[in-house]
Amino acid sequence: MNADLLQALSAQRIETPSWGYGNSGTRFKTFAAPGAARDIWEKLDDAAEVQRLTGIAPGVALHIPWDEVEDYGELGKYAAQRGLTIGAINPNVFQDEEYKLGSVTNPDEAVRERAIAHLLDCVEVMKKTGSRDLSLWFADGTNYAGQDDLRSRKHRMRAGLKRVHDAMPDGTRMLVEYKLFEPAFYATDLFDWGAAYSHCLAIGEKAQVLVDLGHHAQGVNIEQIVAFLLDEGRLGGFHFNARRYGDDDLIVGTSNPFELFCIYAELVFGANSVDDLTRRTAQNVAYMIDQSHNIEPKVEAMLQSVLNCQEAYAKALLIDRDLLKEAQGQGDVLAAHRVMMDAFKTDVRPLLMELRVEMDLNPEPIQAYRAGGYQAKVTRDRGTQTGGGGYPVKEKVRS
Amino acid sequence: MNADLLQALSAQRIETPSWGYGNSGTRFKTFAAPGAARDIWEKLDDAAEVQRLTGIAPGVALHIPWDEVEDYGELGKYAAQRGLTIGAINPNVFQDEEYKLGSVTNPDEAVRERAIAHLLDCVEVMKKTGSRDLSLWFADGTNYAGQDDLRSRKHRMRAGLKRVHDAMPDGTRMLVEYKLFEPAFYATDLFDWGAAYSHCLAIGEKAQVLVDLGHHAQGVNIEQIVAFLLDEGRLGGFHFNARRYGDDDLIVGTSNPFELFCIYAELVFGANSVDDLTRRTAQNVAYMIDQSHNIEPKVEAMLQSVLNCQEAYAKALLIDRDLLKEAQGQGDVLAAHRVMMDAFKTDVRPLLMELRVEMDLNPEPIQAYRAGGYQAKVTRDRGTQTGGGGYPVKEKVRS
Amino acid sequence: MNADLLQALSAQRIETPSWGYGNSGTRFKTFAAPGAARDIWEKLDDAAEVQRLTGIAPGVALHIPWDEVEDYGELGKYAAQRGLTIGAINPNVFQDEEYKLGSVTNPDEAVRERAIAHLLDCVEVMKKTGSRDLSLWFADGTNYAGQDDLRSRKHRMRAGLKRVHDAMPDGTRMLVEYKLFEPAFYATDLFDWGAAYSHCLAIGEKAQVLVDLGHHAQGVNIEQIVAFLLDEGRLGGFHFNARRYGDDDLIVGTSNPFELFCIYAELVFGANSVDDLTRRTAQNVAYMIDQSHNIEPKVEAMLQSVLNCQEAYAKALLIDRDLLKEAQGQGDVLAAHRVMMDAFKTDVRPLLMELRVEMDLNPEPIQAYRAGGYQAKVTRDRGTQTGGGGYPVKEKVRS
Amino acid sequence: MNADLLQALSAQRIETPSWGYGNSGTRFKTFAAPGAARDIWEKLDDAAEVQRLTGIAPGVALHIPWDEVEDYGELGKYAAQRGLTIGAINPNVFQDEEYKLGSVTNPDEAVRERAIAHLLDCVEVMKKTGSRDLSLWFADGTNYAGQDDLRSRKHRMRAGLKRVHDAMPDGTRMLVEYKLFEPAFYATDLFDWGAAYSHCLAIGEKAQVLVDLGHHAQGVNIEQIVAFLLDEGRLGGFHFNARRYGDDDLIVGTSNPFELFCIYAELVFGANSVDDLTRRTAQNVAYMIDQSHNIEPKVEAMLQSVLNCQEAYAKALLIDRDLLKEAQGQGDVLAAHRVMMDAFKTDVRPLLMELRVEMDLNPEPIQAYRAGGYQAKVTRDRGTQTGGGGYPVKEKVRS
Repeated sequence: MNADLLQALSAQRIETPSWGYGNSGTRFKTFAAPGAARDIWEKLDDAAEVQRLTGIAPGVALHIPWDEVEDYGELGKYAAQRGLTIGAINPNVFQDEEYKLGSVTNPDEAVRERAIAHLLDCVEVMKKTGSRDLSLWFADGTNYAGQDDLRSRKHRMRAGLKRVHDAMPDGTRMLVEYKLFEPAFYATDLFDWGAAYSHCLAIGEKAQVLVDLGHHAQGVNIEQIVAFLLDEGRLGGFHFNARRYGDDDLIVGTSNPFELFCIYAELVFGANSVDDLTRRTAQNVAYMIDQSHNIEPKVEAMLQSVLNCQEAYAKALLIDRDLLKEAQGQGDVLAAHRVMMDAFKTDVRPLLMELRVEMDLNPEPIQAYRAGGYQAKVTRDRGTQTGGGGYPVKEKVRS
Repeated sequence: MNADLLQALSAQRIETPSWGYGNSGTRFKTFAAPGAARDIWEKLDDAAEVQRLTGIAPGVALHIPWDEVEDYGELGKYAAQRGLTIGAINPNVFQDEEYKLGSVTNPDEAVRERAIAHLLDCVEVMKKTGSRDLSLWFADGTNYAGQDDLRSRKHRMRAGLKRVHDAMPDGTRMLVEYKLFEPAFYATDLFDWGAAYSHCLAIGEKAQVLVDLGHHAQGVNIEQIVAFLLDEGRLGGFHFNARRYGDDDLIVGTSNPFELFCIYAELVFGANSVDDLTRRTAQNVAYMIDQSHNIEPKVEAMLQSVLNCQEAYAKALLIDRDLLKEAQGQGDVLAAHRVMMDAFKTDVRPLLMELRVEMDLNPEPIQAYRAGGYQAKVTRDRGTQTGGGGYPVKEKVRS
Repeated sequence: MNADLLQALSAQRIETPSWGYGNSGTRFKTFAAPGAARDIWEKLDDAAEVQRLTGIAPGVALHIPWDEVEDYGELGKYAAQRGLTIGAINPNVFQDEEYKLGSVTNPDEAVRERAIAHLLDCVEVMKKTGSRDLSLWFADGTNYAGQDDLRSRKHRMRAGLKRVHDAMPDGTRMLVEYKLFEPAFYATDLFDWGAAYSHCLAIGEKAQVLVDLGHHAQGVNIEQIVAFLLDEGRLGGFHFNARRYGDDDLIVGTSNPFELFCIYAELVFGANSVDDLTRRTAQNVAYMIDQSHNIEPKVEAMLQSVLNCQEAYAKALLIDRDLLKEAQGQGDVLAAHRVMMDAFKTDVRPLLMELRVEMDLNPEPIQAYRAGGYQAKVTRDRGTQTGGGGYPVKEKVRS
Repeated sequence: MNADLLQALSAQRIETPSWGYGNSGTRFKTFAAPGAARDIWEKLDDAAEVQRLTGIAPGVALHIPWDEVEDYGELGKYAAQRGLTIGAINPNVFQDEEYKLGSVTNPDEAVRERAIAHLLDCVEVMKKTGSRDLSLWFADGTNYAGQDDLRSRKHRMRAGLKRVHDAMPDGTRMLVEYKLFEPAFYATDLFDWGAAYSHCLAIGEKAQVLVDLGHHAQGVNIEQIVAFLLDEGRLGGFHFNARRYGDDDLIVGTSNPFELFCIYAELVFGANSVDDLTRRTAQNVAYMIDQSHNIEPKVEAMLQSVLNCQEAYAKALLIDRDLLKEAQGQGDVLAAHRVMMDAFKTDVRPLLMELRVEMDLNPEPIQAYRAGGYQAKVTRDRGTQTGGGGYPVKEKVRS
């Protein structure tokens, strides 16, 4: 393996989310995963196992208040002892009863203030944890035409984002996530990258767009959005996952590995751009997993997710960019396309085994995980937590 | 109002679902609705209020085990006293831990048997309640390519349906519902009307297809499926709701009222067909609401749903079918289209007020409901039940 | 009818496109419409008939070079004599052989220059015709991953738009249209409103976004984009049509009349906004039809299109905005929604007949058109032009 | 390479379409490809070049009347001399002016008879050419709600198919293709696989469903339809191509190679099924390309298409079916999925080079083609045919 490739691959970083190690489900049911982590400490233990086996996943994103602790210094130490760092802070402004009609866009000012206060609290958590990124997702939107005024909600969103933005320390970033739908079914306030981008432009330099792979309408070309935002210097990060239908939140790279490769290709092109802004932007992108492992074992699923990103990145690095540029310049449609495909068709598994040996890792992380005793141990120690999930569980029969 | 129209409109029947009166939500959160019904008895009380105000919604669908009671005789009596009847029985084979990889299509035979046993239990409930319809929805499917064998799952589905079908009493029907996705995100075992229809053909005469308006891919022409199934004698019923994106489960008729009108138009055309099978099929269609009122008051939402169906049906009845046929026969594209649009553009609210007066109902059901004390009473009596919903609620901080 | 309503409705303007009066089709076939206009003079005759019957459609958009004439002064005079004005100028940079790989984004600089030269020529046509709007649609894009560099194409697009923008006279506007796909099937250079908006921001004050109703991904909420762009002062105009699937280009308002109503509602809200920028923007929106009447008679289809816009606008004007605002402020989801629906349910046909009487028009334009001899006359005078359409026509058999 | 694999790969057959060698385009423009074939004889020459380089594409589908000749015996001889065979016969009932409102579903009986007569003529062509398959695609449908009666059109479709079916010789098959939309934009008469399947069941044993990869709604799982139809014994063939948006008709395997692999996986599973009907059905599937090469060189595009199918098939053959079955049986979601992915990740290019050497072919067909003089020769001999395409070309300026 050449040195550049080794260097690039060993420098790759994928952040895993604390909530990906706990139980989650659909509105119909949350199935209980044996040994699923029950609190942030156990989640860090799981993340450490993923990092131990991959070497490229030291960061762990927190979700507040799910991961709230009294002493973030202690949490940071606990993480550091396991080779981990605290990543993005993710506020939760969608689970209080007050947020039924929105958080920062709620028609009621008191609710908006409550939401903003929580976001500002999360900025404080960032300071305590040394997190660079505040990652914002809003469930805000409406279900029926006329339910609320769309432009008023836009104004409220902008004002709220602006206040939080201005309270953020230098060197930090606000990542603004958008989503086509769910849980709002008529209009989502941050409905696409254009809306998020427009707000970012208006509120300030720290604001950047976050792309969640599952939050687009059918057919939308995500790698083109990535290229566009890189070029504008406004791509801040990703929530990686896979989808075929809605926001399916499956393991990244499982439903359409070619799309993931094309996205990584744009990131590699951007990181090698002659344009300073594009290059710097590409180099600072935060790569984060955000999935919902409903039926598969949590830690193994996360491990697989990180590995799928690694394979996609490796393939993207193998694209012969000079040859590609030449074919593109000549308008040789099929030759240019084949340069991409040649990289995609390459089996990078031997290369990545080589990389792992260089990094003092087990060359076969999945096998190593399954052969190791981690899953059995946590199942034994933590048990299986049932309960929860969308639709009502059986109610008591009236006596 | 002419007598035929009055007759048709007063004979319309819309069945409301017991679960529509209780709390429900998205995977992110179930917001607590003040006064939401807590058990089947309270749900019947709510349904009675809807029936009292509309006069066309006496039937109530049950969900087993949510609505399980010890004495169905008592339940039937309670319903009858309120002018209600027990409608379709809806089994639940998606909320037990065993169903993580499917119910009747599970790779494990023991799980399949458990699911079938529950379905057969529901057939017993039908006998006790005098229900005509067993309404089957399966969450069964897979999330990843290769997870299970698609043809094997098809065989298991067919075998399971067949066993239940053959246990059903004469004069009853099995309604087989399909769905594009959710909670399965790679492949849903009953993935479209074609799959449901094929199974119905194979298992027997009692099996018919149930169309849920929210279970189709984008762009799919639902009224055409309705027309096709009517013509084949295999349309059994509807789950009415509205959607723009996924299975949004909004109030029927709110996101695209013209689509609802077109669906009713096919039903009116079918009910007036010269073809015996089509006409008989159309006359026996079960019209059922199946929605998830996440942010709006439950009873008012259900009332609105029934009224929206009434308006759509009234407009469909107003289509000048002779004129339509004539324009169609002449290939006069725009004239034919305008016959449809003329009916759709008609404001049927005065007509329906007239109908209600004829039926001894308040002409303005929504106003009457809001002016009445029902919502205040149930809020006071039942309180507000919090808790539940998709994603994990805040966990305890480790001490 | 109150004076405000009369004033608003009689001031409504819908621009019809010259190309909508000629033959058009799908890639499979262009069916010959009897009497379809053969040149710009006949197209103006047809447009005059639509204006004569509706009174709100005096503007006619030109397509260059399809409508190129030697003497635009003569053309203007011909139009004026028929009560018409020349509307937006629409360049064509997609039908020369050189544009196979793009026009302003073509990898070949010479092709880009050719395209820009044509756009600049069209600016000259604007000066000659007194047109306010240059309406730009590009077929530019790629069909295969890797075919061309996405960021380079973005740069070329921006540079080209900028040069044309800067050559435009004061008081004119550049309307930048976007489209999800077709004829590009991997990536379209102006792929959504966000891309168009970003370019508009970068190139200058005259640039505004044009929304074609058929150019979005499934599920996308167009009225929200309208509201967003109005609020940003960057909504320039519409291409009206209707779709269910792709860019179907059907008669506006036929596939989902409620969506058209919701769009008009945002325009009415915007035109009544307290915000100066929003209000001014809303008042200057250009409303243009852009459709492909493949199977229906051209003039009648255009007439119907204008009338459908009129009905949607009338309904939007009937929304009780005070009541709506009040319900929204109270978070009364269903009451607010019903305010919208009450307007939508109103049958505005009597009102519009009254309006036409006030405007000295026949109250029933469709009936008047069909009863009149126009279609018969043009069919007789112009004949039926066959030929054209997508897929190859029958080739000669080798002798 | 093991003998089974070699045997399977060398037995693979991909039929290329005559129309894929001529010019084609979108409704906006048909760009002229240098050297594009001008008649069926030249198309056979091109197909022979593809067969010469791949060894797995001897069959050529004909389109009538585009490929109509006086002496089909001569045509067959011409083909045979080039190592080719005549494949499926494709009637054209969408380009005559009479078909504006449909062919076999037209409201006018005379038009229906004309269409059926053409289909019966094509059965005669089958007899002359020895073709096994009659491949039916209909543009039939409606653009506006109410335009025609949906059930009447269904009856006409069934009656027409039945008459043709019953006229077909023993041992031949009718392949019934469906499509979501285009050129019909409200309702397409054969709108999905369920509709096609229902007709096939009704009309007889020779009728089977044809799956065109570009004819589905977004999200639809095509491999599941394939599995379902195989299991029912009603999968007759494919029209291969690739799409992201509508019916994009790109080179198969270019937009989502994983989907193509999953489809081939079901075909391999079916061909190895213990069930006789499924196995026999899978073994008789007709694999046909149906694409529109708008911007890329025709012959090279077809060559690439065949090779992409070869790679997908090779990967599908490499799936460890025993291991897969074992993991599926254990409900080991991720292990089962990885068995699929392991095959997909394998770089099969070396294997296929080996295969070609065994088959006495150049191991690198694309390189060989580009290095050879074929494209230069046909460009020189045939020239570049311009003209045609959707929207009107520039009209004459009035003098």
